[in-house]
Amino acid sequence: MSWEDNVRKVVPYVPGEQPKMDKLIKLNTNENPYPPAPGVQKAIEELKGNFSVLRKYPAPDCEALEVALSEYYHLPRTRIFTGVGSDDVLSMAFLAFFHGDKPVLFPDITYSFYDVWAEVYRIPYETIPLDENFDIVAEDYNRENGGIVIANPNAPTGIAKSAEWIEDFVKAHQDTVVIVDEAYVDFGGQSVISLTDKYENLLVVQTFSKSRALAGLRIGMAFGCEKIIGYLKDVKFSVNSYTMNTPSLILGVESIKDDEYFREKIEAVVKTREWSKERLKELGFAMTDSKSNFLFVSHPKMAAAEIAAKLREEGIIVRHFNKPRIDNYLRISVGTDEEMQILTDTLARIL
Amino acid sequence: MSWEDNVRKVVPYVPGEQPKMDKLIKLNTNENPYPPAPGVQKAIEELKGNFSVLRKYPAPDCEALEVALSEYYHLPRTRIFTGVGSDDVLSMAFLAFFHGDKPVLFPDITYSFYDVWAEVYRIPYETIPLDENFDIVAEDYNRENGGIVIANPNAPTGIAKSAEWIEDFVKAHQDTVVIVDEAYVDFGGQSVISLTDKYENLLVVQTFSKSRALAGLRIGMAFGCEKIIGYLKDVKFSVNSYTMNTPSLILGVESIKDDEYFREKIEAVVKTREWSKERLKELGFAMTDSKSNFLFVSHPKMAAAEIAAKLREEGIIVRHFNKPRIDNYLRISVGTDEEMQILTDTLARIL
Repeated sequence: MSWEDNVRKVVPYVPGEQPKMDKLIKLNTNENPYPPAPGVQKAIEELKGNFSVLRKYPAPDCEALEVALSEYYHLPRTRIFTGVGSDDVLSMAFLAFFHGDKPVLFPDITYSFYDVWAEVYRIPYETIPLDENFDIVAEDYNRENGGIVIANPNAPTGIAKSAEWIEDFVKAHQDTVVIVDEAYVDFGGQSVISLTDKYENLLVVQTFSKSRALAGLRIGMAFGCEKIIGYLKDVKFSVNSYTMNTPSLILGVESIKDDEYFREKIEAVVKTREWSKERLKELGFAMTDSKSNFLFVSHPKMAAAEIAAKLREEGIIVRHFNKPRIDNYLRISVGTDEEMQILTDTLARIL
Repeated sequence: MSWEDNVRKVVPYVPGEQPKMDKLIKLNTNENPYPPAPGVQKAIEELKGNFSVLRKYPAPDCEALEVALSEYYHLPRTRIFTGVGSDDVLSMAFLAFFHGDKPVLFPDITYSFYDVWAEVYRIPYETIPLDENFDIVAEDYNRENGGIVIANPNAPTGIAKSAEWIEDFVKAHQDTVVIVDEAYVDFGGQSVISLTDKYENLLVVQTFSKSRALAGLRIGMAFGCEKIIGYLKDVKFSVNSYTMNTPSLILGVESIKDDEYFREKIEAVVKTREWSKERLKELGFAMTDSKSNFLFVSHPKMAAAEIAAKLREEGIIVRHFNKPRIDNYLRISVGTDEEMQILTDTLARIL
């Protein structure tokens, strides 16, 4: 026998590249092109003055941050969970809620980490094909399952379902946990956090990484009824007592506090997105009606991989997924107006 | 059927209390009484000037930190793994390496998270009793197993085994992964990182939380051969691409850089520990010969729980484990000289 016999063999998720070159237009990981709220900078100043607090463990219950979220979303803290980005939250939710023999269901085209979590935790799963317009067909999920995961807006398509659609869907699937991954919801989707008052099997997941421009802090959160959040916290405290470090807890609060800045920058991203859509359509691109901070586009005259390669030569990085059905699409994060101007000018030249 | 049928039910670990009262002498979670290296403060200043970097994802490969560790420990980066505290590292190691049917072995008295990880990941395990002096008996591990975990120095006893002892032990168990948890090694134990050159099934785990006074950042690391670290990274990238946030990566490096400060503060803690041992012995306490930054003590005339309660009334918090064999012991973190003076004076009064 070898020690390697007991190793959990996995095929890991491959995150979007974080290149080290300067002067790059980086439109590949859906980061926010604007800085975090100015209060975050002030909080760093305070942390500097009080840096010896770092010798102590952070609050294991993430109190400051959860109190801020509780006030912002008008939910008791017992219905809020925080983690190291929504990836940590989703990973723990997979571990906590999909502990059965029946397959967990999610779309064939969606956030490509779902199947990785299912694999690492040895959770049976089946993917349900989106229709030819990359839309989710609710009826296709009417089968025995061990849980369901829907991203809304979906990634990398950006297509959003209405809150009513989600409610009908959750209503039809009350026997298992339904996770609604709202990583991109702030850019034009409808959140269903309020539905967690009514459906105890519903878990809504969000993140600070996109709309709050704090990908570097790794903050994600989940909302649900007290019972479902309790189960999630039990699993979290069985994995790592202190997942959220002190800087995240302190700085995260500042982002929540400055709602004006938050809304202003969201609006800016949405405006740039809509403008970029028009410009890309003029260049002949076909696209979904993205409600997120990225565009999902395809060109009839040049293969997506080729466009991505040519953009790269010009110092512009976009995301290409070498996967069935979407290998002729590009996912382009919405940058600043200037970045999108350069992108569209460059595309005009390439094409 | 109910959604709750698929929930992974667990009994979570209970971390040492993080009370919010001021003016408390907090000797319950083995934090370092001294501030982190001064360079950490300077790095916070730099982060402030460059705070919009937080909009971007951190380096998923933790490059800056792993390069610093690589230089410090003279190991290639491919043999170093970093995580959100050693809890995150150990949790992932349990998930990655104990994927078999045979029981994983660890002492009955040790870090009380080991059985929690085994439970949450449904890993079979058996605890092996320490002898009557709380010592590990190597021969007791000579049985079929799916892996072994040893804390060295052990917690909460503080007893350290020599590097030779560990080598003999690892040599005898090359069929499964042996994890040596060196959370407290810097305070007087002998690290076996260099043995990872010779034994590919050996994983050595350390942390920034104790000796580096950075519990608030949540940084832990593992050392091993390239193959074992590769497996661990695969599991990590199947759980969360970006576990370490930007502040941790930036500030952690500064701690590694300032070796003089590091050694100076370690020496201070060790000196206080030895002095405290003498003083506590004078008060009639029995204790192990702790090589860590905590003491493990028992008094013949007063029950540990009672002493803990009385200390608490006086604003001093120590850790009492209500567990078989050790329920008459207290684990007391080594604070500053002043804190330990107040502790021993207070104990003299209580007794």
